[in-house]
Amino acid sequence: MDPYPKPLKDLIAQLKRLPGVGEKTATRLALFILADRENFAGDLAQALTSVKDAIRLCSVCYNLADMPTCSICQDINRDRSVICVVEEPSDVLALESAHAYKGLYHVLHGLISPMNGIGPQDIRLPELMERLSKLQDGEVIVATNPSVEGEGTFHLIARLIEEKHYPVRVSRIASGIPMGGEVKYMDQVTLASALRYRRNVKDR
Amino acid sequence: MDPYPKPLKDLIAQLKRLPGVGEKTATRLALFILADRENFAGDLAQALTSVKDAIRLCSVCYNLADMPTCSICQDINRDRSVICVVEEPSDVLALESAHAYKGLYHVLHGLISPMNGIGPQDIRLPELMERLSKLQDGEVIVATNPSVEGEGTFHLIARLIEEKHYPVRVSRIASGIPMGGEVKYMDQVTLASALRYRRNVKDR
Repeated sequence: MDPYPKPLKDLIAQLKRLPGVGEKTATRLALFILADRENFAGDLAQALTSVKDAIRLCSVCYNLADMPTCSICQDINRDRSVICVVEEPSDVLALESAHAYKGLYHVLHGLISPMNGIGPQDIRLPELMERLSKLQDGEVIVATNPSVEGEGTFHLIARLIEEKHYPVRVSRIASGIPMGGEVKYMDQVTLASALRYRRNVKDR
Repeated sequence: MDPYPKPLKDLIAQLKRLPGVGEKTATRLALFILADRENFAGDLAQALTSVKDAIRLCSVCYNLADMPTCSICQDINRDRSVICVVEEPSDVLALESAHAYKGLYHVLHGLISPMNGIGPQDIRLPELMERLSKLQDGEVIVATNPSVEGEGTFHLIARLIEEKHYPVRVSRIASGIPMGGEVKYMDQVTLASALRYRRNVKDR
């Protein structure tokens, strides 16, 4: 005997699709949504519909946008000779929040992963090569995660650029001990990387 | 410079209204919703709209329902002479999941709280008294939380029934050490209550 009516059960089922949300949390959220008197259900439904209808991918960099190009590509103050390659739109947000980069981006929407059958054609890599073919004397910063897939994608990009003799420098975002981190708590791979890519004090 | 377009920011703002969801979680959920290819945004918006349009309160017990009366009140196999009084619809779910109760419910949608200006007229207490006035030789089990407000609401219900000389027994859900709990870890109030309401072994 289930005391909840079907529309509520449907909402709980939908909320359970969210990452990290199980039966209990979904039920709690659904009851909260129902109990809220300020038309939360209506507002949230409206926001979801708007996102679905209005959000598209920037035709240049494939970042999220509500116009044909995203706000970063439209910004005339950004350096068009540098392209930072990232896996996902949330990487763009993280990098922007650091206020340390003034170039453009390219969002791959995935990383190459032969184990999972994801090849260069399955992500926005052909589109990146197309952009790079038009770049004169620029730089591409590969800022994919320092994981197996992120490193693999970086190496493929570097190799393709070399093969095609594009006049662009390729660089890789630094990996090492995070600021505020402690050497004694770091894992072996990070320590090995931090040692290998140690910087000569003259570079400062 | 915010790299997220407005519809996405609106969705993040709405998701932040959920309990326990802050800026980071809301952003993660919004990007998950966007990235999902199986029309999750549309399905969730649809579920929210359905809930908003279809869910009402049962005209008898004020539990959640998608018909004029809820599925429990409609069930002809339930004992109509017992009414279990609870604070919220989720209490009904919890009690139902115990499979130990076959009577009806009454959902107050709140507890009396003079500190917060919530009086008997602000919850479904007049409706409860109206129901009880028609009950012949029944029982009302007050299953509000064993908190200050829950106890206060219980005492008021008991007093009102006594004043009106309704022919119904009033009982209070037991409070004590939860099954599987340990005496040594219990708080003083729970231990005091468990001692005070100890049961004579003959009652078993």
